[in-house]
Amino acid sequence: MDHIAPLSVDDDELALLTDLYQLTMTQAYWKEAMTAPATFSLFFRRLPPERRFMLACGQQHAAERVSRLRFTDRALRRLAEVDHLEPAFLDWLADWRFEGDIWALPEGTPVFANEPLLEVDAPIAQAQLLESLIMNLVQLETVLASKAVRMVMAARGRPVVDFGLRRMHGVDAAVRGVRAYRAAGLSGTSNVLGGLRHGLALNGTMAHSYVLAHDSEREAFRAFARHYPGTTLLVDTHDTLEGVKTVIALMREEAGLEIGAIRLDSGDLGELARGARALLDAAGHVDVKIVASSGLDEHAIEALLADGAPIDAFGVGTRMGVAADAPVIDLSYKLVEYAGEPTIKHSPGKINLPGRKQVFRRHDAHGGFVGDVITGRTERVEDATPLLHPCVVNGQAAPDAMAAADAARERVARDLERLPAALRRLAPLEGEGDYPVTLSERLAGRAGEAP
Amino acid sequence: MDHIAPLSVDDDELALLTDLYQLTMTQAYWKEAMTAPATFSLFFRRLPPERRFMLACGQQHAAERVSRLRFTDRALRRLAEVDHLEPAFLDWLADWRFEGDIWALPEGTPVFANEPLLEVDAPIAQAQLLESLIMNLVQLETVLASKAVRMVMAARGRPVVDFGLRRMHGVDAAVRGVRAYRAAGLSGTSNVLGGLRHGLALNGTMAHSYVLAHDSEREAFRAFARHYPGTTLLVDTHDTLEGVKTVIALMREEAGLEIGAIRLDSGDLGELARGARALLDAAGHVDVKIVASSGLDEHAIEALLADGAPIDAFGVGTRMGVAADAPVIDLSYKLVEYAGEPTIKHSPGKINLPGRKQVFRRHDAHGGFVGDVITGRTERVEDATPLLHPCVVNGQAAPDAMAAADAARERVARDLERLPAALRRLAPLEGEGDYPVTLSERLAGRAGEAP
Repeated sequence: MDHIAPLSVDDDELALLTDLYQLTMTQAYWKEAMTAPATFSLFFRRLPPERRFMLACGQQHAAERVSRLRFTDRALRRLAEVDHLEPAFLDWLADWRFEGDIWALPEGTPVFANEPLLEVDAPIAQAQLLESLIMNLVQLETVLASKAVRMVMAARGRPVVDFGLRRMHGVDAAVRGVRAYRAAGLSGTSNVLGGLRHGLALNGTMAHSYVLAHDSEREAFRAFARHYPGTTLLVDTHDTLEGVKTVIALMREEAGLEIGAIRLDSGDLGELARGARALLDAAGHVDVKIVASSGLDEHAIEALLADGAPIDAFGVGTRMGVAADAPVIDLSYKLVEYAGEPTIKHSPGKINLPGRKQVFRRHDAHGGFVGDVITGRTERVEDATPLLHPCVVNGQAAPDAMAAADAARERVARDLERLPAALRRLAPLEGEGDYPVTLSERLAGRAGEAP
Repeated sequence: MDHIAPLSVDDDELALLTDLYQLTMTQAYWKEAMTAPATFSLFFRRLPPERRFMLACGQQHAAERVSRLRFTDRALRRLAEVDHLEPAFLDWLADWRFEGDIWALPEGTPVFANEPLLEVDAPIAQAQLLESLIMNLVQLETVLASKAVRMVMAARGRPVVDFGLRRMHGVDAAVRGVRAYRAAGLSGTSNVLGGLRHGLALNGTMAHSYVLAHDSEREAFRAFARHYPGTTLLVDTHDTLEGVKTVIALMREEAGLEIGAIRLDSGDLGELARGARALLDAAGHVDVKIVASSGLDEHAIEALLADGAPIDAFGVGTRMGVAADAPVIDLSYKLVEYAGEPTIKHSPGKINLPGRKQVFRRHDAHGGFVGDVITGRTERVEDATPLLHPCVVNGQAAPDAMAAADAARERVARDLERLPAALRRLAPLEGEGDYPVTLSERLAGRAGEAP
């Protein structure tokens, strides 16, 4: 008897991962024979307080996935239990296919307020149904990548490793988070399934329990280093600097024992790193690295390095794993066009940008980004790069989609260099960010009701 | 060609959802023939700033699930790609079974700092391997239930509905979150798969896009109310009180049109609710309810009701969905006993409670909770209820486990009434919480190194 609800959400259940109103509205469109084309736009209105940009991640992945959404017999049997849904509508859902287009930013693109991460062009009963799933999928990877890249910037070239599995919000966040971390430029992850599935190097050290289960710290270190030449030993179980001395004594005692690094996981990491470095160097172990973990975030990493802490790599978990200071962005999926007409919702104090859109990014002579222009979809801006690309056309994912997804990490690394230096500062913002995003004249004219 | 990584984590991949060091430490225990029994204890050291208690959720679920963990052939083939893991160890993993005991708090138990949510008693190579997965599973449900119950308390008997799918951290968080919400006492969810899987009522209204896709708000309302008698109409697409007047005009115009409620989703919800109530009542529609949503959390709900806002139900998404003010708790899974000996890790400023434990809850004459005592596992406290129960014994889940899981919602409702009134206040804490948690004399003696 398997009375435990499954943890997995299978592909044939994905169509059920939606808000009830998407189904009731779609049934209403079907009953009213509303089949005109619609465009929905996915964007956020404001950057979180400490972000100067977000990395748009997951939108291409989400687009390709939803383009293949189906209501399987198994899913339809579950929906038959839901009030308000009629058998004839469920029959219609059995044949439901996404046949529209999805334009999206390439994975890993720096994105700013009011810029579409993606736009869906399709009959309204197709585009509406995708809303909840697209938002859930894009939200996670964008939030996690945008936090993780701040660790990478703070560490100034030193490796940053994801230790977040135990604190992230469930199984999908932990596994798919590694995809976002790979894009953001992390060096590795401790998460075995995440790393294997998404192609990020696996890293691991040891836990306090291993030390405590041995007769002494020295015995634990000796055993672990024999099993795993070049390993990282956790030195703070009892007293950090005494632990470092034990490591040094062990290396003196047992020639050939390879110890790659020590890990500090508590206390004043800067002071302990300096103490450990001095002990290691004095004993001639200039090649033994120092890894630090324990409640780190980008500000802690920046402060440690600004203070000259001799730390070679960082393990980051809790605060990065939930993007603790900005666990959500204010994503919207708004109907911006229906039956060829731009739609306007009156929202006091909010900008509304009706119609299908494009985003152009301008560069200076060295390739640096100097500002964006949001335009109508078919407008052109000279000497600027259009960012939204069709990744699903007539319901089919474009063939270069995989290459684009694989390129996310390289794109992030390259684009970070091209952002204005002020946008790479990690300190809390004073006032708004510095990056100019303007509207084309035509779009500004249509957005006339905006403040 | 399916080049998109799956979203699902199948049962036979769960054993891979671990930190690499769990596997390397376990291989080390295996190589060293360390087979002595160990006890690991799952607890947190501090309540988050705004919490006066947490609801322990997911621990029984996690215990039952990990008790059946297996390394399948598919999983072992993936592990063969991982550095450091030896073929003979992978052969041993093929036969790995959890054969120990897991003691856990019943699902939905109010829990305080330093109290075990669960303890695992098993050979160390079994207990160690469970750490990352148990922590990920328990963390999610405990964090989400502990936030959601604050909405329930704030709403003082009015229904609270989960609208969080689009903002929660991925697929598992959204679906399994509904399990936590059911325990916490929410009335419904918009999440179709979550509600169907975990037995919470499905609720839904309509979106602005439905209104915008019609020729007028009035046409949209008329169509939707005809399709769904008794439905909730979203009235703020253009102007909220004008929207309410349109609803009233429509009911006058079309006798028999059943409208159950209106939803306010922007603006000053208290003022608009008063305005809408006045208009509805003046037209004789005292039975049409008012539902409010839009960035709500427990403080906003409490303030609205304290101000007398005539709101009948709340839809809550973003801030509840990620537990925005406390998205993580500081959970630890610590080795507290090995080979019959209590283990002590020296942690300056932290309490360490070695050995297997039990928690006793004391009651006053009316059943109210007056304080807890943490003891050794085999101690007894008179006139107090032991909270930890064996839910896995010799590797087998106890047969009453399902009944216990189903009882979580009832337990939460009952226990909320039994907590001291001060613990049910939602305002930020001044100083520490009021609930006394003490140590038994014997345990205090063993914890002698603690501050």
